[in-house]
Amino acid sequence: MRIALGVSYNGQAYDGWQSQPSGNTVQDKLEVALARFAAQPEPVRTLCAGRTDAGVHGLMQVVHFDTPLARTAFSWVRGTNTFLPPDIAVQWAQPVPDAFHARASAVARRYAYVLLQSPVRPSVEAGRVGWVFQPLNLAAMQEAAEYLLGEHDFSAFRAAACQAKSPVKTLQRIAISRRGTSTSVQAKADSDTDWQPCYWRFEFQADAFLHHMIRNIMGCLVAIGQGSQPPQWMAQVLAARSRSAAAPTFAPDGLYFLGPVYAPHWGLPERSPAYDWLP
Amino acid sequence: MRIALGVSYNGQAYDGWQSQPSGNTVQDKLEVALARFAAQPEPVRTLCAGRTDAGVHGLMQVVHFDTPLARTAFSWVRGTNTFLPPDIAVQWAQPVPDAFHARASAVARRYAYVLLQSPVRPSVEAGRVGWVFQPLNLAAMQEAAEYLLGEHDFSAFRAAACQAKSPVKTLQRIAISRRGTSTSVQAKADSDTDWQPCYWRFEFQADAFLHHMIRNIMGCLVAIGQGSQPPQWMAQVLAARSRSAAAPTFAPDGLYFLGPVYAPHWGLPERSPAYDWLP
Repeated sequence: MRIALGVSYNGQAYDGWQSQPSGNTVQDKLEVALARFAAQPEPVRTLCAGRTDAGVHGLMQVVHFDTPLARTAFSWVRGTNTFLPPDIAVQWAQPVPDAFHARASAVARRYAYVLLQSPVRPSVEAGRVGWVFQPLNLAAMQEAAEYLLGEHDFSAFRAAACQAKSPVKTLQRIAISRRGTSTSVQAKADSDTDWQPCYWRFEFQADAFLHHMIRNIMGCLVAIGQGSQPPQWMAQVLAARSRSAAAPTFAPDGLYFLGPVYAPHWGLPERSPAYDWLP
Repeated sequence: MRIALGVSYNGQAYDGWQSQPSGNTVQDKLEVALARFAAQPEPVRTLCAGRTDAGVHGLMQVVHFDTPLARTAFSWVRGTNTFLPPDIAVQWAQPVPDAFHARASAVARRYAYVLLQSPVRPSVEAGRVGWVFQPLNLAAMQEAAEYLLGEHDFSAFRAAACQAKSPVKTLQRIAISRRGTSTSVQAKADSDTDWQPCYWRFEFQADAFLHHMIRNIMGCLVAIGQGSQPPQWMAQVLAARSRSAAAPTFAPDGLYFLGPVYAPHWGLPERSPAYDWLP
């Protein structure tokens, strides 16, 4: 029987998703917990929809695995969570046909990047937001984002270690929004920066992403938002198809894998309740 | 010269606010950082608006201290933050008259309690939200909260270790709201609980709070919200003036000190930008 699981995790404490000899990855923790619940000596092997880097969070990673065990869906959730650390939890479990494959069946992936714009670095939300201390221009970032939409060779935003077969991906959506302008807060630098702190949310959807693609795009969007580069620079970076043309890779802290998108006929949940927790 | 500071922190890693021999409190970290910035050998002694327990977070704790050093306001912010751990940060600094006192000048305190209602325990937000796995009834909790408003002897909600001179406090406001009903999420228990996960936010404002008062009130509100007790039970608990009448103390995880309220003539910020971070 094939089972699909939705998994949420705070990536701060882990060496990313993918299993490593250290054993300190989200996949390692999940596979050990599944084996303990299944009372079998060897880990239960899982395949995921999208690997995340060290420090990146998952709101709804999806995995599948095969098991001879007959358990109700919710007992897989509750039982596995008993053996998982507090910062990882299975959100749902669902039996799926053998034709379902967590990675191959995903028609798209969604990510969010959350950014604190403030003269003061993060504290309460340290490790869970990126940070800029100069105000960002929304219109400039939106104009720049337009250049990335559609099918392109994204080599300029691709990490050297990327294992994707092709650098050509289709970016279907970039949505940029800001939340919070606490007009009563007076934190300001000595200079004339009298702007108010706020949170920015950048949402991305593509058929698939290259390694570091979003963090590299974020580096460019922030450079443009701060006025270091004009919006048209994004088109030049894209056209260069060379990593050296782009801005430095942005921090993993604010990056959240929102989850894969599957065809509706699979009947799987579309997003995590923790989505409502992001600013 | 007297300086007031607004300080934000994630309380998960600390033994509460107040200085202890362990040195592992937010006050200890702050006082050491201030001394390092001031380049003086002994810690800078601070007085705070409201002490928080271990595991409780601060969005805008306010402290004051006296110093012979002449520095610009923002250099106190930036300089002190250099010496603070990543999960604590000064948000603003402001010179204040000697008549200002972080505790004595505060006319009220504000707290929020954030609660995840889900069949599945927290993960991404572990340590930063409380958790209930049974759905809560808003109307019942609001009716119960009404009994607490105004001036009362809150002994029923007071910890044994409480040092307050009087158990009589004035609760000025309790606001209960919920956020997020991700209708596409299908996490459910095996039983007939087909409700959707969401976040609840409880906001409290009083002239002052007794030790554990909010966590004890939360225990009662949750019991009433889940239907274990009727709303009128809150009035009985209050009237009993005995800790044994109330529900167990709720977890510290979801409790946030939003900050003190001062008379407008002091000209201090009213809330932290991180307020917009809460669900």
